[in-house]
Amino acid sequence: MSWALYVGRFQPFHKGHMYALEYILERDPGVIIAIGSCMTSHEPKNPFTLGERLAMISAALDDAKISRHSWYAVGIPDVQIHPSWVQITKALSPPFSRVYTNDPLTRVLFKEEGYEVLAIPLLQKDQFSGTEIRRRMLSDEKWIDLVPEATFRLIERIGGVERLKGLAP
Amino acid sequence: MSWALYVGRFQPFHKGHMYALEYILERDPGVIIAIGSCMTSHEPKNPFTLGERLAMISAALDDAKISRHSWYAVGIPDVQIHPSWVQITKALSPPFSRVYTNDPLTRVLFKEEGYEVLAIPLLQKDQFSGTEIRRRMLSDEKWIDLVPEATFRLIERIGGVERLKGLAP
Amino acid sequence: MSWALYVGRFQPFHKGHMYALEYILERDPGVIIAIGSCMTSHEPKNPFTLGERLAMISAALDDAKISRHSWYAVGIPDVQIHPSWVQITKALSPPFSRVYTNDPLTRVLFKEEGYEVLAIPLLQKDQFSGTEIRRRMLSDEKWIDLVPEATFRLIERIGGVERLKGLAP
Amino acid sequence: MSWALYVGRFQPFHKGHMYALEYILERDPGVIIAIGSCMTSHEPKNPFTLGERLAMISAALDDAKISRHSWYAVGIPDVQIHPSWVQITKALSPPFSRVYTNDPLTRVLFKEEGYEVLAIPLLQKDQFSGTEIRRRMLSDEKWIDLVPEATFRLIERIGGVERLKGLAP
Amino acid sequence: MSWALYVGRFQPFHKGHMYALEYILERDPGVIIAIGSCMTSHEPKNPFTLGERLAMISAALDDAKISRHSWYAVGIPDVQIHPSWVQITKALSPPFSRVYTNDPLTRVLFKEEGYEVLAIPLLQKDQFSGTEIRRRMLSDEKWIDLVPEATFRLIERIGGVERLKGLAP
Amino acid sequence: MSWALYVGRFQPFHKGHMYALEYILERDPGVIIAIGSCMTSHEPKNPFTLGERLAMISAALDDAKISRHSWYAVGIPDVQIHPSWVQITKALSPPFSRVYTNDPLTRVLFKEEGYEVLAIPLLQKDQFSGTEIRRRMLSDEKWIDLVPEATFRLIERIGGVERLKGLAP
Repeated sequence: MSWALYVGRFQPFHKGHMYALEYILERDPGVIIAIGSCMTSHEPKNPFTLGERLAMISAALDDAKISRHSWYAVGIPDVQIHPSWVQITKALSPPFSRVYTNDPLTRVLFKEEGYEVLAIPLLQKDQFSGTEIRRRMLSDEKWIDLVPEATFRLIERIGGVERLKGLAP
Repeated sequence: MSWALYVGRFQPFHKGHMYALEYILERDPGVIIAIGSCMTSHEPKNPFTLGERLAMISAALDDAKISRHSWYAVGIPDVQIHPSWVQITKALSPPFSRVYTNDPLTRVLFKEEGYEVLAIPLLQKDQFSGTEIRRRMLSDEKWIDLVPEATFRLIERIGGVERLKGLAP
Repeated sequence: MSWALYVGRFQPFHKGHMYALEYILERDPGVIIAIGSCMTSHEPKNPFTLGERLAMISAALDDAKISRHSWYAVGIPDVQIHPSWVQITKALSPPFSRVYTNDPLTRVLFKEEGYEVLAIPLLQKDQFSGTEIRRRMLSDEKWIDLVPEATFRLIERIGGVERLKGLAP
Repeated sequence: MSWALYVGRFQPFHKGHMYALEYILERDPGVIIAIGSCMTSHEPKNPFTLGERLAMISAALDDAKISRHSWYAVGIPDVQIHPSWVQITKALSPPFSRVYTNDPLTRVLFKEEGYEVLAIPLLQKDQFSGTEIRRRMLSDEKWIDLVPEATFRLIERIGGVERLKGLAP
Repeated sequence: MSWALYVGRFQPFHKGHMYALEYILERDPGVIIAIGSCMTSHEPKNPFTLGERLAMISAALDDAKISRHSWYAVGIPDVQIHPSWVQITKALSPPFSRVYTNDPLTRVLFKEEGYEVLAIPLLQKDQFSGTEIRRRMLSDEKWIDLVPEATFRLIERIGGVERLKGLAP
Repeated sequence: MSWALYVGRFQPFHKGHMYALEYILERDPGVIIAIGSCMTSHEPKNPFTLGERLAMISAALDDAKISRHSWYAVGIPDVQIHPSWVQITKALSPPFSRVYTNDPLTRVLFKEEGYEVLAIPLLQKDQFSGTEIRRRMLSDEKWIDLVPEATFRLIERIGGVERLKGLAP
């Protein structure tokens, strides 16, 4: 029985993502975490590198006692020729059958290639979103409750809030 | 204490690579397996996709009872501006301190950026090399002894030898 | 006597484009239809692939009894170094002498290279525009009158309106 | 009933290609001529631009009285991530069902995506090949018999033999 | 004693830039003028080519009697993988030690790589800015006082104001 | 009266290049030194970065008492679509009229765009060539006589011979 693909950008990895992974793992035997825009970092909307996002995700899943045998993380770059994105994801990832995403473009492209694409029920979308978390970081509001502790630790260690503020126009 | 970086192309993952990983894990607390030319596949010298190489490697390390908490695999693309390769590897990977590689360019670039770069003692280089394994596949000679069983299983399942023969000029 | 170049994106091909082609063919012996942003598709402003746009255009011109010996269609990619666009268009296209376009960048670049660049009198620009047609598709307003029947047939067959709605943010 | 795809580089378009097109048109209702490496020109192995190759092909097929309603020519760029080539070809081309090619990589990639891929019986491969024709051009041997008259006319007009000699190392 | 790096886009080179260069040359023995987005031109926000910007800068510095032995100008392209920007700048430029810039991304990236990054006190930022100068050019307001005479001469010669107006949407 | 363009890779800058520059400056009022493959370094055939080549060239020309007002150096990247190379060189460089080069591709491309292209009489080509100098560096033969003293000093300072040996396969 084959694994699921879960596509996101994880800027940063937050509790909504954690909830989504638990939701998927109740339904599928394992999940490939496809980290989109993997080459992009140091931008106001994409502050963290792939390496930093990988480190957040694996520490958070370890803390949650989710076995490393039930997930795998891979970076997927943005592509200029959109229809090639499905093939490129297949080439860069271990095999998967169905796809979980709330991203419009990802949904359209995988559906047109015949995949079953499922939405993820969102946990309080107005709060558990990267956009909201980055907004709070910039305005010194409380954002720590919205992320796993492992995400917080990594952002502290790399000076992530300072980076984000430094990148603001 | 920080992890090591081990750079290779793994076309395919063979027993020499397995030996190198064991050698590194005796000296370092963990190893990041940097899979070079990660976007390249379906070429005579690079037949397997990143996804296929990730699948080979994780199955082989599982079979060898090496804990998933002591290694992490990431794909690294080729870059056109060579001096940027070190920074790109750092951006795409969890943190590492020293580097193991036998590749000349990788060695020069990381050394010029101040990294300690170590060579890996090779296990019978004339046999345990991707070049030799691909040569044997093309000429129907025995190659199975040179790879972990997990590599063999994956190549069987995807029809890897047929692909390689189909790509021959 | 040499042909004209007519540059557009054709997202989708509509009656304004058809009118422009007829206008050009009254003045020039033949027209090269340069389909810009040819690698771009599956975006809200660029929903259709080059292949789909080629299929729309040739069916519509066939329906209009315009001989295939009086036009030729080629895709032209976006380029990052703008001054190279003229040379790239020349390299990817059969020969042409003068240029018809209403696009500011295309006009500036070809003029700076010494070409005669002509504007196209627009047929009710508020209606016969890709922007307006895509807006109507998204809001379920009537758009069929604005395109040749061949464009409508192709969009029906590929589920183009559903694609466009699926791509909306 | 759907069209066939015929993949080649056509450097230059020669009588072997003409024979292949006639062979395909006896079996399929129409053929999409996919001109590979479409961005490449001014190299010893790829001397002609896409525009020049399009001009050769359409003039030669016109001379042979092959209706423009039974073929369509599109340029296809080289891609770095090989598995995406099939999707990119689909995006840049009108629809096709089966594929004719003698190129190893094209055959492997389309087969892995489930396409029927057919070889083309070659007409005296030692003569009717781009390599042989370019070799004769460089050494001032007779090459005119190997190409349709339209190819010869175009190469004369653009000074193609002089270009090829100028590019020789 | 090593030179400073001064990063800007210089669209166009104005008196604020000239003031910055004089400010740096009072503190450092020489300055490398890093012209960012060097491949970008013919856009409303980036109208001038690198060649045009190099010509403006060297004529203006000559007019100001600043010796060519105290500055050097190099173009630096935009990069997609931001963390590689520091390395790429180092590879494309003669050696430098500290960095002057007011650009947020440049400041963050060089700081993360351990460089001393200094801001430049701005001379009436509301006037001496490329944005303001381009705005005045478009609306036929007086902009000549804001630039060195050499910038004005070059823009006159190339028809720069006409280009900018032609590019307006 | 307009300047000349002199195209080379300068890996490294040697006495043959110096002789060529003196030859050009006897005939033209100034020369733009176009440093090709400017993004390429750390390869056996292209060991030095653009920054290193710029440093060699300016020091050598200073030593030779050639005024900085009679030359200008710019980097030019390799391009994939060859016909765009002329336009890109024009965009990245101050204006020039005629072109000096011994490179076949450069000669063909500039000639096809209507430029006067002149060859440079070579000074003992078997010795004064980058290929020969790099060969001698690798085999510890005497190469110092073939380069200006400034080139030697820079290669010493950066450890250039060690880099070249480290890159050897």
